[in-house]
Amino acid sequence: MPYPKPLRRLVSLLTRLPCVGEKTATRLALHMLRMPRESVRELGEAIAGISEAVIKCSKCFNIADIDPCSLCTDPARRDDLICVVEDPTDIVPIEKSGEYNGKYHVLGGAISPIDGVMPEDLRIRELTDRLSKGGVGEVILATNLTAEGEATASYLAGVVKPLNVRVTRIAYGMPVGSDLEYTDEVTVGRAIKGRREV
Amino acid sequence: MPYPKPLRRLVSLLTRLPCVGEKTATRLALHMLRMPRESVRELGEAIAGISEAVIKCSKCFNIADIDPCSLCTDPARRDDLICVVEDPTDIVPIEKSGEYNGKYHVLGGAISPIDGVMPEDLRIRELTDRLSKGGVGEVILATNLTAEGEATASYLAGVVKPLNVRVTRIAYGMPVGSDLEYTDEVTVGRAIKGRREV
Repeated sequence: MPYPKPLRRLVSLLTRLPCVGEKTATRLALHMLRMPRESVRELGEAIAGISEAVIKCSKCFNIADIDPCSLCTDPARRDDLICVVEDPTDIVPIEKSGEYNGKYHVLGGAISPIDGVMPEDLRIRELTDRLSKGGVGEVILATNLTAEGEATASYLAGVVKPLNVRVTRIAYGMPVGSDLEYTDEVTVGRAIKGRREV
Repeated sequence: MPYPKPLRRLVSLLTRLPCVGEKTATRLALHMLRMPRESVRELGEAIAGISEAVIKCSKCFNIADIDPCSLCTDPARRDDLICVVEDPTDIVPIEKSGEYNGKYHVLGGAISPIDGVMPEDLRIRELTDRLSKGGVGEVILATNLTAEGEATASYLAGVVKPLNVRVTRIAYGMPVGSDLEYTDEVTVGRAIKGRREV
């Protein structure tokens, strides 16, 4: 007995989500059929409208309730410091660290020719526009420490430095609480290279 | 930085799904924000309308494209045999086993006072209505081999026997405490073959 067509269609749409294979998608779809009708409609409508409901800050391109976002308009945050990240989710751990009190700039990804993401697909022009208005003394490159993040960081360094803005990169090193024994040799090597006076 | 309100609402709605905690829900919601707008709208609308799109067969209450469903109208299937299951998903392994060629009756769950599911919440009245029309010689009780499924089976035996219909229970060839939905078809097939008088 094949499942009814609308159910099979829903299963196939659900497999577009990350980590959702056909089995999980089927389980989710059947669960939705058993949920109260109003409850599943509420969920579906929230999903359908999410792109319109969540706006992007027109200054930093972080996801936001209001434009400009609360981080951009916070008078307690420094205006002369911009931290560049790939995605809005990257802002969360930086904020949690309590070590940063400047502004942000969300690129919307990292350069990855293999995935078809080129520099012009990222919000690099928007960054240089912000910098050319003046007032920014330092740009911290906090793209991921992956091949794509590194490529993006060196590309950005080449673009930002000619604007006479200091460019820094977040430090490579050992994660707090990590064991030397279980850390990969590249990370250990970088931690040794980046050693500091105590 | 708290996420925007519509995003937090979507995360909370997604946690209604099985095996989706707050972390998974957040990952799914952020992925939806990155998906093409049309793609996420299509998914949301499919979810919102799933209860209306999938109809129930008015005879056996299986999920279906048409009413009555293709199983109920199949002339190759015996009319004098009804297999009673908890949920539509339970029909799949029985069909795969190839050991059954009668009709079905989907109860819509199992008796479970702890979850507030009483006999009157299941389609038991609809089953006795079908039986009282005559022509059915045997009812196979294929509720799950769990405490709730067993309780439902013995309740049904008490209801169906007075109607002078043979009542059988699928055999304990299946592991105790298991769900039909997740059992391999060979085991399900053996359990159907080995059904006994109750």
